Amino acid sequence: MKYVYAFHEGNKDMKNLLGGKGANLAEMTAIGLPVPQGFTITTDACLKYYDEQETLNGEVITQIKEKLQELEQKSGKKLGDTNNPLLLSVRSGAQVSMPGMMDTILNLGMNDEVAAGFAISTGNPRFVYDNYRRLIQMFADVVMGFPKSSFEYLFDKMKVEKGVALDSELTTDDLKEIVGIYKQEYLKNAGAPFPEDPEVQLLEAVKAVFRSWNNERAITYRKLNHIPSEWGTAVNVQEMVYGNKNDMSGTGVAFTRNPATGEDRLYGEYLMNAQGEDVVAGIRTPKSIETLQEIMPECYREFSHICRLLEDHYKDMQDMEFTIEDGHLFMLQTRNGKRTAKAAIKIAVDMVNAGKITKEEALLKIQPEQLNQLLHPNFTQESLESAQVIAEGLAASPGAATGKIYFTTEDVIDADARGEKDLLLIRGETSPEDIEGMNLVHGILTVRGGMTSHAAVVARGMGTCCVCGCDSITVDEASKTLTTKDGAVFHEGDYMSFDGSTGRVYGEQLATMEPEIFGDFETFMDWADEIRRLGIRANADTPKDAKQARKFGAEGIGLCRTEHMFFDEARLLPFRQMIVADTEEKRKVALDKILPFQRDDFAELFRVMEGDPVIIRFLDPPLHEFLPHTEEEVKELAISLDMTFENMEHLRNRIADLKEFNPMMGHRGCRLAVTYPEIARMQTRAVIEAALIVQEEGYFVKPEIMIPLIGDKKEYLYVKNLVCQTAEEVLKEKEASLNYLVGTMIEVPRATITADEIAKEADFFSFGTNDLTQMTYGFSRDDASKFLQDYYKENIFDFDPFATIDQKGVGVLLELGTRMSRRVKRDISLGICGEHGGDPQSIEFCNKIGLDYVSCSPYRVPVARLAAAQASIREKSNK
Amino acid sequence: MKYVYAFHEGNKDMKNLLGGKGANLAEMTAIGLPVPQGFTITTDACLKYYDEQETLNGEVITQIKEKLQELEQKSGKKLGDTNNPLLLSVRSGAQVSMPGMMDTILNLGMNDEVAAGFAISTGNPRFVYDNYRRLIQMFADVVMGFPKSSFEYLFDKMKVEKGVALDSELTTDDLKEIVGIYKQEYLKNAGAPFPEDPEVQLLEAVKAVFRSWNNERAITYRKLNHIPSEWGTAVNVQEMVYGNKNDMSGTGVAFTRNPATGEDRLYGEYLMNAQGEDVVAGIRTPKSIETLQEIMPECYREFSHICRLLEDHYKDMQDMEFTIEDGHLFMLQTRNGKRTAKAAIKIAVDMVNAGKITKEEALLKIQPEQLNQLLHPNFTQESLESAQVIAEGLAASPGAATGKIYFTTEDVIDADARGEKDLLLIRGETSPEDIEGMNLVHGILTVRGGMTSHAAVVARGMGTCCVCGCDSITVDEASKTLTTKDGAVFHEGDYMSFDGSTGRVYGEQLATMEPEIFGDFETFMDWADEIRRLGIRANADTPKDAKQARKFGAEGIGLCRTEHMFFDEARLLPFRQMIVADTEEKRKVALDKILPFQRDDFAELFRVMEGDPVIIRFLDPPLHEFLPHTEEEVKELAISLDMTFENMEHLRNRIADLKEFNPMMGHRGCRLAVTYPEIARMQTRAVIEAALIVQEEGYFVKPEIMIPLIGDKKEYLYVKNLVCQTAEEVLKEKEASLNYLVGTMIEVPRATITADEIAKEADFFSFGTNDLTQMTYGFSRDDASKFLQDYYKENIFDFDPFATIDQKGVGVLLELGTRMSRRVKRDISLGICGEHGGDPQSIEFCNKIGLDYVSCSPYRVPVARLAAAQASIREKSNK
Repeated sequence: MKYVYAFHEGNKDMKNLLGGKGANLAEMTAIGLPVPQGFTITTDACLKYYDEQETLNGEVITQIKEKLQELEQKSGKKLGDTNNPLLLSVRSGAQVSMPGMMDTILNLGMNDEVAAGFAISTGNPRFVYDNYRRLIQMFADVVMGFPKSSFEYLFDKMKVEKGVALDSELTTDDLKEIVGIYKQEYLKNAGAPFPEDPEVQLLEAVKAVFRSWNNERAITYRKLNHIPSEWGTAVNVQEMVYGNKNDMSGTGVAFTRNPATGEDRLYGEYLMNAQGEDVVAGIRTPKSIETLQEIMPECYREFSHICRLLEDHYKDMQDMEFTIEDGHLFMLQTRNGKRTAKAAIKIAVDMVNAGKITKEEALLKIQPEQLNQLLHPNFTQESLESAQVIAEGLAASPGAATGKIYFTTEDVIDADARGEKDLLLIRGETSPEDIEGMNLVHGILTVRGGMTSHAAVVARGMGTCCVCGCDSITVDEASKTLTTKDGAVFHEGDYMSFDGSTGRVYGEQLATMEPEIFGDFETFMDWADEIRRLGIRANADTPKDAKQARKFGAEGIGLCRTEHMFFDEARLLPFRQMIVADTEEKRKVALDKILPFQRDDFAELFRVMEGDPVIIRFLDPPLHEFLPHTEEEVKELAISLDMTFENMEHLRNRIADLKEFNPMMGHRGCRLAVTYPEIARMQTRAVIEAALIVQEEGYFVKPEIMIPLIGDKKEYLYVKNLVCQTAEEVLKEKEASLNYLVGTMIEVPRATITADEIAKEADFFSFGTNDLTQMTYGFSRDDASKFLQDYYKENIFDFDPFATIDQKGVGVLLELGTRMSRRVKRDISLGICGEHGGDPQSIEFCNKIGLDYVSCSPYRVPVARLAAAQASIREKSNK
Repeated sequence: MKYVYAFHEGNKDMKNLLGGKGANLAEMTAIGLPVPQGFTITTDACLKYYDEQETLNGEVITQIKEKLQELEQKSGKKLGDTNNPLLLSVRSGAQVSMPGMMDTILNLGMNDEVAAGFAISTGNPRFVYDNYRRLIQMFADVVMGFPKSSFEYLFDKMKVEKGVALDSELTTDDLKEIVGIYKQEYLKNAGAPFPEDPEVQLLEAVKAVFRSWNNERAITYRKLNHIPSEWGTAVNVQEMVYGNKNDMSGTGVAFTRNPATGEDRLYGEYLMNAQGEDVVAGIRTPKSIETLQEIMPECYREFSHICRLLEDHYKDMQDMEFTIEDGHLFMLQTRNGKRTAKAAIKIAVDMVNAGKITKEEALLKIQPEQLNQLLHPNFTQESLESAQVIAEGLAASPGAATGKIYFTTEDVIDADARGEKDLLLIRGETSPEDIEGMNLVHGILTVRGGMTSHAAVVARGMGTCCVCGCDSITVDEASKTLTTKDGAVFHEGDYMSFDGSTGRVYGEQLATMEPEIFGDFETFMDWADEIRRLGIRANADTPKDAKQARKFGAEGIGLCRTEHMFFDEARLLPFRQMIVADTEEKRKVALDKILPFQRDDFAELFRVMEGDPVIIRFLDPPLHEFLPHTEEEVKELAISLDMTFENMEHLRNRIADLKEFNPMMGHRGCRLAVTYPEIARMQTRAVIEAALIVQEEGYFVKPEIMIPLIGDKKEYLYVKNLVCQTAEEVLKEKEASLNYLVGTMIEVPRATITADEIAKEADFFSFGTNDLTQMTYGFSRDDASKFLQDYYKENIFDFDPFATIDQKGVGVLLELGTRMSRRVKRDISLGICGEHGGDPQSIEFCNKIGLDYVSCSPYRVPVARLAAAQASIREKSNK
């Protein structure tokens, strides 16, 4: 088995094996670009490492040494050679870029002897010892996991002792001294000296990359992004080139187009005489890429040529790292660039219009989740007019966020756990450890860092509003305060607002409004609609939600829950009277009071939907959810029922009787209709009467009545008969006719297993994957949150089954239910209305098993439309 | 389609279509016995009747009339003829005899004219008018549903008026008068006159039989006996013969053997000059069948010949009805006779020994449930005769118990400590804390809770007599009294008696007798063991249970629940300390205290089982079940932990935190092991150390560790690794070696769906069908009891899915799990350990899908052995 590939042995399609970075280095090598040569250790080697109790397999080591030898021959340098040493960088590189993992170790291969010889051969000892001390520091931090701060402290101490302010003011001797001090510190921490053997350095670095695949941040990131832990990471070993060699050297990152707006112009930053980490760290402020044209016109021309070439080659906007060593340009990395949704859509539409890609290719370029950015609110014009800008930073990720400020990820997590909404995170700069906090907040503000800093990249990926590099403010993490240039102080929990599209920061709460849907977006979504097979409906309980859903392109309502209709004050009291009534007679009296309200609700919904399908689900939650909790409310209910004192006791007993051990698995859904048929009758009457009113007004209307929680054919038939009898009664009374459908929600495992029997009697099914997931796994969402954290931590679960359909378990039942129902009724309408209906991966699965539509929350409708289109495209290309 | 069969057109194998009675009448006709002729209307006609909104289909009516005409030709009589009228009986007859349904209408075809003519032609007008008045009375009662009492009242009034005591003292004229009075009463009730048209009488009677299929009693009976409502009933229409014609006439019932003891001697009773209903009604005392020999020797000889013939023909003890009309013997019915378990076994063994049937046939003759009678103590016949029933509840766990009553577990424990014997426990309902008390008493009575309530389940497991849901009594725990509906009050220490086989409660001490396990029973069970393929294990948590299980023939322990081990006083406190501990360290300290107890428990269990397999299930219930409920207990716990006052608040918070919304779907089972691996480690250590101790003593021992509630392969692997690492640690410490297995309980739907993946890593599976049923249906047993009553009433469910495996739903998952796990691991050990493991129908299913064993409560082991044998026999005969 081949575990190590030289760059010239791979290509861009080998991402699974070589990781994204490795595959692209190979590809660039293949098309003749200037890439420092090296080799990639495969993801297979990583998996083997874990299979064998975290040890490097002998065969893997042998192959690494072989490739190293090849590299030495090719470069004419030798690892550990004192005259002409080969120096290496080691980088992780999974199939997809993963911020949580180890990034880079530079200058590998350095030791006392190599440094001494290399100082002579380069004639630049300061440069050599600076690289040497950096190696020790990185190695101690990333490979060994020693505290970074102690090395930083020693370095700062040296500067104080020497009376200098800048790193560059330290002399060669100072740096030599630092190397010695670092080695002592290393020895103290490790109990063993810093490994002078370059091969040991290399193998330890490789193992560190493998280990970093399973550090906590990487696991969190994988969970958030549905990346299976089984993938593993590759390792890239590459000859060093030095952007910090001299003033004819430099390093930078660039995008072929503007990643914020999509504008078709080279976009990037660089630093002269610097290593890559200096650009990202945000310590020195980099320059715009255009200025390179003046400083090194030759290099700039070559670079912009390579940019065009790479974009055309990859058919996508590229994000590249480059280094210039002594006037020579080297490409260190290329990948498809992260971008805002707005930019993504503009780039996609522009590239289609320019004939560079097809509509299908364009549709595949955008992560459906990214559209969220376009659907998020902005500040209202009025609120902005009176608002005071207290600081300004880089507009790193668009959107508007308003809320309470927090200064650490822990505090954000705590606030979220307390149930606080609308949180904002403020940091000096963010690091991979902040991922969890960043995921919980509406907006992020950093003091340091540019458009390509960690905060900016991650926030854009998440579609979260972010302002970066806001260096006019001071943040004190200890006292949890933010101080503006003008001395205004904000404390933890104060309100602020960030505008990620302008970079402006406001010291108050601002009103937000819905986004505008602009031209390219419409064009793009039209393409999605042309191509998708799946219908997209929305879960909407109110006319307001329904309107929003239509605006976002929903083709109907897949789920209108009726229970919220009972919580309204005018209805709650009669509904409570209904619940505690001890005779059918009394229940009917109470329900008669609710009927006109429900009828009006439904009528308004039908009007809004203008003839598009509307599925109304009958009452689902257990009745005790509606009962009074406080003694006062109980009294109010008692008074409303003209109850005597003794009856109060009876009422309390009735309330106590309704308590359940496991409400999720209790007296709810269709079971209510079996026990209290009058509820289903009232709801049927409300639906049919409402439909007749709206039909009379000239609308087309065909209500679909959905009976929840069915598990058995006879159970379904019983309730269906109730519904149909009542509907026919109403139609006879009103001497009218109306088309209506009756179907059920498939949400208990038994319903999927007996779907063929139930399908014979049902007009439609809607898979309720929330409950189906709970029952298939046997845990309730509310209770599982307590232990699922441990499941993620221990790598038992890779993803949240309530967010993405569990294809191995729940998915098997969905497929079974679909197959069996289609077998007996080919044209039965099948959809899904759990939260999974808005999740792209789940939508792809729904497309695959042949559902007719998905239904999701109104704000996810555009996401679903795109995901459905992508599913169709992938399905065709797989055929 | 043929809806009506003349008797000569059918045979005994057509029970599905003709019902049991009809098929046997046809069979007797076929073998030439004297049977009054007639015809049977099929169960198909009944189903059609229900399909067509309870109307008799025209085709069915036409065929009835055709067969009626045939019957008229054959008999030479004519329905409604005034000279030679055909008179009919109409009887219901389902596939199995169903006491809940309509029984019989006699003398059909009688009206004023027929009666007048028939009185002349028979020369016996008294006889004719007596029959006529009986017809009106029966018709009004059974067909029309008028109150029986009003007719009885009128009859009694007449006797008073005429000054006579016996029916037979009424004259012909009196009876004619009664006919007139009855007709008036009928008119008053019906609003229409009694139908004089014999054909109308007949069709109405047929419809009444069909209707009776769905009366409440019939539905209840079907539910209790797992009879599907889809079967429907047949109707038998038969020419009347008259046992009340004269003194050469008579009627009786007889068994070919004694149904109480099994003795091989004709056993029965008859009355001369009487109709069948007189024998059953018990107004006149019937004579023993032997005396017929003296009165009508010819008839007796013929009858005893027929008895032998029928028994040989049906290869079973027969229960027959006969009528003698004017010296002629007629057989009205034969069927396999109901008998006591003791008789059943004796008959079966005798018949095998006599070479009349095979062992297989013998084994099929006994309902496994019947064996229960032989396994529990009963009250003596004499003691029951004078005993007063003071309340009645559900017969939840069979057996008879007499003793002193106590109202709390503590009081039971105290009484036991004082040396009192024969204790009874009475509770509103029981909870896991009552286990210790339940374990000490002979009988348990609860006010609330159904057949599957905690008390019922636990009592059946223990083999302790239990009456549940006895809601006519009131229990006051504070004053320690029980009050009956009639106001009788019983105090702590008073004597009472419970009959768990009938649900009856007596307010006094009654004599009991232990069951005899006699020779035939052993022989019979040996045959069952020879023939069955399925292994039989027991669910036993304690050495005591395990001993009982072995006595009843269990071949191992299929489920030893370990949670009860934590409820013991010595362990509960450290366990509570463990639960509320906030560090792993503190948890370990607490667990270390429990370890020696668990080790001893397991060691004793291994000794009792002498090398037979023992499956130990690790801790399953959510931790909050173990926490203190009262403030006092909380304080006790706090003191034991040396807690300060502030810490108390912390403790209360921790207890509150552990509360769950849906404990059934919460933090339990293997999820506990993921979060608190130290619990699983402690239990592993206890198991392995115990096994080593017992191995040392010279026993063979191979413990099987079962991880509950697994839903995913990785989840299983995680816990399995914990277990194996710990086990290897212990073995290394002790320098010993030991064989042990690790497997899992398959009880959440997802585990059945992914069984192939899990099977790769597991030594065995045990299907936990209790939880699997709950999750597949999506209702919890505790909560479902509230609404399932409505499901039975509305015919939505035919049976209790917690008692018998739901083959259409849960069964599909079991089959899937079995098939998939066998596919990857052919020899994986597969069993079932839910309560279904003791249910004969479920056992047959387990046999069919190829499980290796079933595990049930010790007292159900003989039942399971027989059921497994029957399953094997049926399987072979189906091949």
